[in-house]
Amino acid sequence: MMMKAITKPLLAMLAVILVSPALFSDPLPSWNETDAKRSIIEFVEKTTDANSPAYVPPSSRIAVFDNDGTLWSEQPMYFQLFFIFDRVKKLAPQHPEWQTKEPFASVLKGDYANALAGGDQSIMELVYASSSGMTGEQYASEVREWMKTARHPKTDLPYTDMVFQPMLELLAYLRAEGYKTFIVSGGGVDFMRVFAEEVYGVPAEQVIGSELEVKFEMQNGVPVILKNPKIDYIDDKTGKPVGIYQHIGRRPVFAAGNSDGDIEMLQYTTIPRNEDDESVRFALFVHHDDATREFAYDRKSHFGALDKGLDIASTNSWLVVSMKNDWARIYPITASMH
Amino acid sequence: MMMKAITKPLLAMLAVILVSPALFSDPLPSWNETDAKRSIIEFVEKTTDANSPAYVPPSSRIAVFDNDGTLWSEQPMYFQLFFIFDRVKKLAPQHPEWQTKEPFASVLKGDYANALAGGDQSIMELVYASSSGMTGEQYASEVREWMKTARHPKTDLPYTDMVFQPMLELLAYLRAEGYKTFIVSGGGVDFMRVFAEEVYGVPAEQVIGSELEVKFEMQNGVPVILKNPKIDYIDDKTGKPVGIYQHIGRRPVFAAGNSDGDIEMLQYTTIPRNEDDESVRFALFVHHDDATREFAYDRKSHFGALDKGLDIASTNSWLVVSMKNDWARIYPITASMH
Repeated sequence: MMMKAITKPLLAMLAVILVSPALFSDPLPSWNETDAKRSIIEFVEKTTDANSPAYVPPSSRIAVFDNDGTLWSEQPMYFQLFFIFDRVKKLAPQHPEWQTKEPFASVLKGDYANALAGGDQSIMELVYASSSGMTGEQYASEVREWMKTARHPKTDLPYTDMVFQPMLELLAYLRAEGYKTFIVSGGGVDFMRVFAEEVYGVPAEQVIGSELEVKFEMQNGVPVILKNPKIDYIDDKTGKPVGIYQHIGRRPVFAAGNSDGDIEMLQYTTIPRNEDDESVRFALFVHHDDATREFAYDRKSHFGALDKGLDIASTNSWLVVSMKNDWARIYPITASMH
Repeated sequence: MMMKAITKPLLAMLAVILVSPALFSDPLPSWNETDAKRSIIEFVEKTTDANSPAYVPPSSRIAVFDNDGTLWSEQPMYFQLFFIFDRVKKLAPQHPEWQTKEPFASVLKGDYANALAGGDQSIMELVYASSSGMTGEQYASEVREWMKTARHPKTDLPYTDMVFQPMLELLAYLRAEGYKTFIVSGGGVDFMRVFAEEVYGVPAEQVIGSELEVKFEMQNGVPVILKNPKIDYIDDKTGKPVGIYQHIGRRPVFAAGNSDGDIEMLQYTTIPRNEDDESVRFALFVHHDDATREFAYDRKSHFGALDKGLDIASTNSWLVVSMKNDWARIYPITASMH
């Protein structure tokens, strides 16, 4: 009789164990046992505990992540620029005038620094030449093919192998706890969508990024979306909360970035709206301070500079994650930084 | 012994019944037993059956719905216009000049037809005056308060009671079968987001609509989104596939509309991309042919005209749903069309 009386609760407990592995295993195994990891887990636990005053109902669990430098590396330059340069080289035979015309001439000579020296104007010319004048489907197919063979100049790894294992775990952990994860990045929206679902588990409709203007057209009876050589929206700095408003339509509870371009997104996520606003919020910067395993840069970097952000992080109670101290590993596979 | 031997499978079967009501009950009870209902169910069943050549993997199950006239009524004019007019009246004391300035003067006299006679230019002036120059949160709060007390001139019902019960069932049915449901509508995105989750079960981030330009600003240390008096994007006609590309980033499998403004969305959803594209797609028009229970209009309506769409529906194999013949009921509660 005693045995029987115990069996039912035991079975129920087993069922709980089977469906809730996170309760019994480490959700962030690639994070060291430091304050950073502890504060993230504490935030997730209290916002998902219905008995906590910090409880956030499932429909409000919105988490936003920058991409370049936050979910994958961004040195020696944003990876999308490698795609743009490779595509300019591929298209060069159809554009003999590029041999002598900047910024194309520098790209063709492999002098990327000089190609970018013209600033935004040069970058836009390269973006338009490489990423417009075709349908959305053709563009996605170009990015997909490039991703298969392109290799990072320093690690010789495919770019999609240079994603941060601790951040992949954080994305999965938040999703397991009912958060909906979004990418909010300065990168091109349709560039990121090619790999975001497979690599990050973030579906296309949860990727927000910079956009070229697009146009709908019937081509020989087939409906297509054409990418025009015109910037529609830049998803950086104040553009990030704007993108969040237009695409998500509610204020995130959690935000992760790594550069000054993310400040407004972190402010929008965490700063109380008024004196009655006591909701719990969380934001973090990934700080690139690991020259051995990745790259070390912050205030003076050409790409992903973190300067003002470092100054205002503690006043805002934003966590600064040290890649060197807080992360047990960087990439899913061990990279050789030769 | 026999009893015991049966108990386990029986319990397992009971568990299946409890978690899968759709297997055993009618998913579309407010649809009559006509070809329309049969074709919808056939489409859903074959695209979710892993053994069918028409199978669509869960991540590609994207369904898009127009709002005005497709999910709720749109006569005698789009419901959002009632909000705009009511707000103009509310703001009138602060704008004495509106008493003599069109289109405001006509609104204040209650002559809505004349207020709209100036076309897009007049409508834009009214939109800007009623729906910009405030934060996103203030705007949402205005819409929410208005929704509570506003009543439709003909039915005397709250506008959110004038949603179509058969379409609510269709939304829920598609979601139960793994489809992600989106609204893609000419209405204001932040107008619809106020009620879309509660009324349609569609979360804010799955609502795509027309947008005013917005700006991020710090106001006395508080981050806000300000709505500017400038159109950023009109989600109608060719704007619908454009919005789908920018917000969802993939081609829908299912689309529902009710007017010529939805034609491009239906084309984008259903027309094969090339000769090898044999994927199964589904699109429908809701045809307003029920003057007794709702409204009867199509080719010549000022709002939601369905003209060219009626002509090209059958060539495209788009289902035309007769509200009169295919729907057993219109609204969740019985309305008196006095």
